[in-house]
Amino acid sequence: MTSQDCYWFEDMAAGQVLHSARAITLDRDAIISFAREYDPQPAHLGEETAKDSQFGLFCASGWQTGSTTMRLIAETLPIAHGGMGAGIEKLRWLRPVRPGDALRVEIAVLATRPSASRPGSGVVTYRCTTRNQDGEPVQDFTTTVLMPRRPAAA
Amino acid sequence: MTSQDCYWFEDMAAGQVLHSARAITLDRDAIISFAREYDPQPAHLGEETAKDSQFGLFCASGWQTGSTTMRLIAETLPIAHGGMGAGIEKLRWLRPVRPGDALRVEIAVLATRPSASRPGSGVVTYRCTTRNQDGEPVQDFTTTVLMPRRPAAA
Repeated sequence: MTSQDCYWFEDMAAGQVLHSARAITLDRDAIISFAREYDPQPAHLGEETAKDSQFGLFCASGWQTGSTTMRLIAETLPIAHGGMGAGIEKLRWLRPVRPGDALRVEIAVLATRPSASRPGSGVVTYRCTTRNQDGEPVQDFTTTVLMPRRPAAA
Repeated sequence: MTSQDCYWFEDMAAGQVLHSARAITLDRDAIISFAREYDPQPAHLGEETAKDSQFGLFCASGWQTGSTTMRLIAETLPIAHGGMGAGIEKLRWLRPVRPGDALRVEIAVLATRPSASRPGSGVVTYRCTTRNQDGEPVQDFTTTVLMPRRPAAA
């Protein structure tokens, strides 16, 4: 992807909403594989171990939902030279993500402003909602990212 | 691991601090592999592509730092039947995680209270700080998890 296909700070405005072009499905094996490496707790390791979990429900690690969301963000809002995020506010896991769930994201721009400390960049705050195939929100957060300003035309 | 080796709600108290017994090192290949799947932005895909990133620095995806932190939390605070987290407050990526950085976590319990809606559970709020091999914080967040209460002795 060239910088021409990417978003610059000037392309962003409060009220803008972007939707991922595709869904990513978390199948059973992918959920267990992620859990073995990053979140080996009973609820995420398979149907059998999940019976011994607090809610008795086999579901994906919230960090897998978050990481998969990041993948969809990178495709939906490809930032020239890549975005730099300093953090996340109020990350919420709203519903369990079950095997076979197909996730999509919606990015709603809340605010934009030039960076005071970095003249070549702007600061963009957006809310990202991840939904399953039934349109139900499974995760929600707000984040602020640094985006480069488009270079002046030659 | 049996439930006897795990933490129950009654084992937790404000002021308690737990440290991971080991570090997890994020090497170059692991950073690129995670980025290809979850965060394919220039800064995370290798030294060459990182030169074209906003800060020009090759570093791990924040979501890899977060997921690796979850692994260390699961080992450091293994919760009976597994913890259930509803979300994360103020996740901050404080410093870049570079290839070869060895991450450890510190879990500082901020508050505990019985759950009003779930009599068999308690609510524990803790702050988790992830540090590199030089002791510098690379990530910080606060979270609240549901933990089961220890069953009455038979």
